[in-house]
Amino acid sequence: MGSKKIVVIGGSAAGAKAAAKARRLDEFAEITLIQKAPDLSMASCGYPYYVGGVFNDRNQLLCTPAGIVRDPAFFDKAKAIKALVETEVVAIDRQEKQVVCRELKTGNELILSYDKLIISTGAKANRPPIPGIDLDGITNLLTMADTDYLRRICDQKKIHQAVVIGGGLIGVETCEALQLSGIKVTVVEALDQVLTFLDGELAHLVENHMQAKGAQVFTSNGVKEFLGRDGKLAGVRLADDTVIDCELAVMAIGVRPNSGLAIAAGLEIGKFGGIAVDQYMQTSDPDIYAAGDCVEISSRISGEPTFAPMGDLANLEGRVAGENAILGNSVSFPGTYHTGICKIFNFAAGSTGISEKAAKRMGLTEFETAVNASPDKPGFMGANLLVSKMLVSTKDQRLLGYQCVGPGDVSKQIATAAMAILGKLTVEDLVNADLPYAPPFSLAIDHFITSAHIIQNKLKGRMTGISTTAVWEKMQRGEQPFFLDGRSPAEFEEMHLGIGEHLIPLGALRSRLGELPDDKNAEIICFCKISLRGYEAETILRAHGYTNVKVMEGGIMAWPYPRKK
Amino acid sequence: MGSKKIVVIGGSAAGAKAAAKARRLDEFAEITLIQKAPDLSMASCGYPYYVGGVFNDRNQLLCTPAGIVRDPAFFDKAKAIKALVETEVVAIDRQEKQVVCRELKTGNELILSYDKLIISTGAKANRPPIPGIDLDGITNLLTMADTDYLRRICDQKKIHQAVVIGGGLIGVETCEALQLSGIKVTVVEALDQVLTFLDGELAHLVENHMQAKGAQVFTSNGVKEFLGRDGKLAGVRLADDTVIDCELAVMAIGVRPNSGLAIAAGLEIGKFGGIAVDQYMQTSDPDIYAAGDCVEISSRISGEPTFAPMGDLANLEGRVAGENAILGNSVSFPGTYHTGICKIFNFAAGSTGISEKAAKRMGLTEFETAVNASPDKPGFMGANLLVSKMLVSTKDQRLLGYQCVGPGDVSKQIATAAMAILGKLTVEDLVNADLPYAPPFSLAIDHFITSAHIIQNKLKGRMTGISTTAVWEKMQRGEQPFFLDGRSPAEFEEMHLGIGEHLIPLGALRSRLGELPDDKNAEIICFCKISLRGYEAETILRAHGYTNVKVMEGGIMAWPYPRKK
Repeated sequence: MGSKKIVVIGGSAAGAKAAAKARRLDEFAEITLIQKAPDLSMASCGYPYYVGGVFNDRNQLLCTPAGIVRDPAFFDKAKAIKALVETEVVAIDRQEKQVVCRELKTGNELILSYDKLIISTGAKANRPPIPGIDLDGITNLLTMADTDYLRRICDQKKIHQAVVIGGGLIGVETCEALQLSGIKVTVVEALDQVLTFLDGELAHLVENHMQAKGAQVFTSNGVKEFLGRDGKLAGVRLADDTVIDCELAVMAIGVRPNSGLAIAAGLEIGKFGGIAVDQYMQTSDPDIYAAGDCVEISSRISGEPTFAPMGDLANLEGRVAGENAILGNSVSFPGTYHTGICKIFNFAAGSTGISEKAAKRMGLTEFETAVNASPDKPGFMGANLLVSKMLVSTKDQRLLGYQCVGPGDVSKQIATAAMAILGKLTVEDLVNADLPYAPPFSLAIDHFITSAHIIQNKLKGRMTGISTTAVWEKMQRGEQPFFLDGRSPAEFEEMHLGIGEHLIPLGALRSRLGELPDDKNAEIICFCKISLRGYEAETILRAHGYTNVKVMEGGIMAWPYPRKK
Repeated sequence: MGSKKIVVIGGSAAGAKAAAKARRLDEFAEITLIQKAPDLSMASCGYPYYVGGVFNDRNQLLCTPAGIVRDPAFFDKAKAIKALVETEVVAIDRQEKQVVCRELKTGNELILSYDKLIISTGAKANRPPIPGIDLDGITNLLTMADTDYLRRICDQKKIHQAVVIGGGLIGVETCEALQLSGIKVTVVEALDQVLTFLDGELAHLVENHMQAKGAQVFTSNGVKEFLGRDGKLAGVRLADDTVIDCELAVMAIGVRPNSGLAIAAGLEIGKFGGIAVDQYMQTSDPDIYAAGDCVEISSRISGEPTFAPMGDLANLEGRVAGENAILGNSVSFPGTYHTGICKIFNFAAGSTGISEKAAKRMGLTEFETAVNASPDKPGFMGANLLVSKMLVSTKDQRLLGYQCVGPGDVSKQIATAAMAILGKLTVEDLVNADLPYAPPFSLAIDHFITSAHIIQNKLKGRMTGISTTAVWEKMQRGEQPFFLDGRSPAEFEEMHLGIGEHLIPLGALRSRLGELPDDKNAEIICFCKISLRGYEAETILRAHGYTNVKVMEGGIMAWPYPRKK
């Protein structure tokens, strides 16, 4: 028997990783990597940072940690992998176990036979048929070609206004990149918030930060029409007929699996249009594996297939596909908890597991949430205030989801939560977790543990929370609870909501109970800057017989609505 | 029945937290906090940063996140807690349920009765009877008074040379603080490495960094004698008779529980001299709880009592003690995984669970380790190279320990590992963990997951590792394995070990097998900068019939010994 023939279609994250893993497991396999684009193994999540000028050497998107560009010569020498670039696979012949390719430059056809085939054809950008979408100046930020185009625009400094359509991960990263290049950016999002992996109140804090950094954000709005002049983009008309002048538009309204080849080959396809694979990353054809943005993987939350086009998952999936293609089905990919993170100017925003919105969408009812606004480290070490939201099951107190936004070390918080979810940890486990503490890195009680303390207080009935959103909605309905701000006059002077709140500093509360409503059943909502004093105020009032006291979770720092000062 | 009387002895981390928690659970309890020192609720882990001038406002060590100094007036008003400072408890009368106190300023005696007592008397610095130890200029860095003393010295800029005795957490933090103030520092450590929570090879990397920053580090050496002039410290004589001139010496050779009061009261004491408590933080007297550095808690690794004087644990223990003192034994403190972290100049070093050294000390044999040197994020985002060591059980593949050092985001790595250990996760869980990825925060495959990949390769027999220490020891024994450096000539030119290694770039290896030893059973040790190419070289050589090939784990970046260039 000769050496095993492995063909990999697609040479970005999943494909390159699968080919490399296959090589490590079989020095003598014939491995061919077929790539339509000219580049290989691109760090595509880095595109926005190259566009924004965070670095200027394009090769850094393509090279190993040792600085070697991963071109066909590199694959040939270091990996003994034959990499064919600018070569498109036009068909998979499953009967004959062959792929039919075309060299893009010459038009030559090439037929490669395989023992095992790995499909990693990635994703395609969604591009809806909006009038004017073919005007010059409308692009995506998905491919290296898009990246080169946008970087050129940023370097030329001729364009002054851009619209980014879509406020998801790529949308906000693109917004930052263009804004850093001196272009005035407007983000238009059809839903009522950016970053749908966050719950609304946290997303609104991100929007406020984007606007503070000079970007405009329109939510609950879409693009009705692209307006042109001489074939070039000159503006967009939004659903509400607002017209925004712009010379550049970036479509960032999501991607879909690039599964056309697989469909044509008759492979099973999932309901999101991605290639269906089992835990071995094996398709409905046992000789074909698939990995990366072209597949559907398992959601570890719902157990259902999901579409999760993330660079980290693509690498891990590719590793599994590469191993199984060589050794037979021996390793599994367990799926995703939908962990995600992004940077937006000085903020970071991340999430793992389920949000409250997702929980409601899934029909869950037995859960509790808690918002925590508190610093990531001591003030004397340059604290950053983080706002996070924890979601736990009230059935078994297991952590189900965690989101965190703010200028601090959000990735540590999210990684901590991701491992806690993976470990099926409960609130009881988290409240006394042994996390690394020293002042340069965290508070004595880590922000994450404080989140667990808050939710435990709620679960034990010691704290009744109300979200800033629920307070805002009450106000919109004309309700007038008694708002108690427990801070000092100096703090109040510096910043306050102006929602009719009564300022009674916590230290004076016990002696000023007479200023509270006479009706001990009246609704009282306590808060402070972060609602720690708000919580202490609640415990005092409860002890003095007030029956309807709530804490506005996260306090003023989690209030995303307009405030008086 | 009147209100419950709670007396708390000690007003630093554990005591202040216990008192505050007790108050939240019982608005009407009479709570008294007795503190020998003038300050309360000091952020003692922040002392080195105040000494080093990271911040200059001493009150920042004492204030709430909102900037209010936690003095007796604060405790009175905000917490309704009576805080007696500069008041020493001289005896506990368990029979009468009273504590006898003395006001330090007046000498007045005060007797307070309690329903529940909480002891949180903290730790005392070890101060061995070295000749000359009472000379002027020898201090600790444990109390606020020590801090004020050292800060004054740094501000005065009269002292130019200091010796820090002890290379543990406090020792290295003190070293940094003094060095930042322009004082030339020598650290003297009796053991053969600093930071004993790390294994030697990682600790040596930290020592190298300290020396690169201008500090001198002597290991396997102790202080034989302090040398004085006119009653003032003028130098130290080390065990090997080296004399180091210095005008300041800081003793940082550990602390011991300050349990004298408890001993005198006849409470049960553990083998480390700490107050024995159960999981409720209850002492052998059911009316007395204890928390913080004066107690022994449970090691979650060995199940045995341990002494773990850490600020984060003290806070969590205090919270439990405060709750149980009010509500009866209702919440538990589970103990510690010995998680720790510290900053040393531009490096951070952290650990959780057990090190290889600890495993051996415990008599464990069924474990595997792996060293991983790799970046924390992509090169184009300003990568920092981290070196970590993972330890897993070979019985059930559970993660047992993790250490990480380097200039990057070590606290994220350690927190991730701490939660993985708490969740009893296995290598299989970790290799496909869903951690947050975006280029500003991590590599597509996070450093921590890469560690799991490496150890999985070892466990599956795909990689045979050898530590840099074992290689060094081989060389000291005069053994001459074939060393294969798989990097490029340019990289070699820039930096190399000079241990007789043969440079064969990975890309040329397959065509240059003839340069390897003829004996296919000869020992070949492969490496590169981080030993990824070293690992690939190993897989190639194995496939070509070489039977005794190893990878030097972590490569050149994990090599703490002298190198030629």
